[in-house]
Amino acid sequence: MRICLIGAGNVGTQLGLAFYKAGHQVIQVFSRDASRAEKLASLISSEPISSLQNLKNGADVYILAVKDDAISDVFNQIRSYLSDSLVMHTAGSVPMTIFTDHSRHGVLWPVQTFSRSHKVDMRGVPLAITGNIPETTRAIEALAKSISDHVYHIDDTQRAFLHLAATFASNFSNHMYTLSRQITEAQDIPFDILKPLIQETALKIQRMSPEEAQTGAAVRRDEGTILRHLLLMKENTEMKEVYELLTKSIQSSSENAG
Amino acid sequence: MRICLIGAGNVGTQLGLAFYKAGHQVIQVFSRDASRAEKLASLISSEPISSLQNLKNGADVYILAVKDDAISDVFNQIRSYLSDSLVMHTAGSVPMTIFTDHSRHGVLWPVQTFSRSHKVDMRGVPLAITGNIPETTRAIEALAKSISDHVYHIDDTQRAFLHLAATFASNFSNHMYTLSRQITEAQDIPFDILKPLIQETALKIQRMSPEEAQTGAAVRRDEGTILRHLLLMKENTEMKEVYELLTKSIQSSSENAG
Repeated sequence: MRICLIGAGNVGTQLGLAFYKAGHQVIQVFSRDASRAEKLASLISSEPISSLQNLKNGADVYILAVKDDAISDVFNQIRSYLSDSLVMHTAGSVPMTIFTDHSRHGVLWPVQTFSRSHKVDMRGVPLAITGNIPETTRAIEALAKSISDHVYHIDDTQRAFLHLAATFASNFSNHMYTLSRQITEAQDIPFDILKPLIQETALKIQRMSPEEAQTGAAVRRDEGTILRHLLLMKENTEMKEVYELLTKSIQSSSENAG
Repeated sequence: MRICLIGAGNVGTQLGLAFYKAGHQVIQVFSRDASRAEKLASLISSEPISSLQNLKNGADVYILAVKDDAISDVFNQIRSYLSDSLVMHTAGSVPMTIFTDHSRHGVLWPVQTFSRSHKVDMRGVPLAITGNIPETTRAIEALAKSISDHVYHIDDTQRAFLHLAATFASNFSNHMYTLSRQITEAQDIPFDILKPLIQETALKIQRMSPEEAQTGAAVRRDEGTILRHLLLMKENTEMKEVYELLTKSIQSSSENAG
């Protein structure tokens, strides 16, 4: 496919590299930051542009890999170039209906957290895709399958919930690491001591459900340990509140499961 | 060292295997469950016992790898066999002072989550150790270093806080996976789609601090996305309460860091 890639941030960069590797022709890379556009373009034999006025007509697909709240703006700026090309965005939290008055549109959301510096193998990244009509869904599916082995049909409603689930699975679990680091730092304990445990906890759910993997004082209803924990946080009301609510939530989840 | 290992559960089994591999002599393995004692003993050329009355005198060290709330009971049952041997437990949440009237005692806590079925490499498991006097600390340190490359001196107070930190890092992060799975299940979305994200989130903090790794609507203060998320949970007050509190907690952590 002939692709115009709009956005050269983390997601744009990883997608651009994957499309190139899969043999697609990324004809242009746009970034407002000219040096960033040039850097990615040079890696994937593409033309860098830093003004949307230089966008070419007639690509097979225009991919908006820009910040969630910029998608609508960018779409309005480029719609006159689109004719009947496919247009899609890469955001988990933005509905497909943002493109509703364009005939061929859809979404390709890589369900992964990317850092520009850290290379990921896109073949292992789950892609949640949808299109506005069967023909566009098929086209997006073909493109997605050319770069990933894990392509899922996820409609707009499902994607909204999946984005919420990802917030718990990633943003909130990372915050648990932050709180644990606050505790160790305050006691001069190296945070490194917890890293293997964090790894193993994430690995465990590859082999069993998180409900089965749940351990600790909350699920055991070990009131003595819970009380000792609460005493350690008596001067940190915010952290204590989190501890109490999550303990309650673990107990209520295990009740419903049992 | 000549070791009597009391307990053949997850921790006892992993320690027994590691001691054997490091060339120590595990002279007895106790479990109330005779078949469990036999199974572990056969793997490490030890003698299985299922009654503490058969415990031998004069081992160098007696290790109580039993449930937290059984340590005190078991200690009372075996103290007449101990003379001046070293005695220790393997629990994160139990103070060393439980042994206080025995002259030589301490703690060796493997900071990891174990499953009997899943083999771990003990050399990579952090061991938090302490002893009641410099001599016992040195003895426990030597034993710990013979099986692990990551031995940390952690006193009783620090260990209580480290156990609390581990609760956030492991039990509570696992519960975040549970909540995300509840969301995907209700929408007929395969939970598998989130597993690579969960892995990468845990891996990320090997390269940067969790504060630096934090992403998502809460830390971006993206009120639009937060509001859409809350609407998706309008019939699940418990989950919504967790979402709201963690969003607040992420924002307050990032304020303090900034």
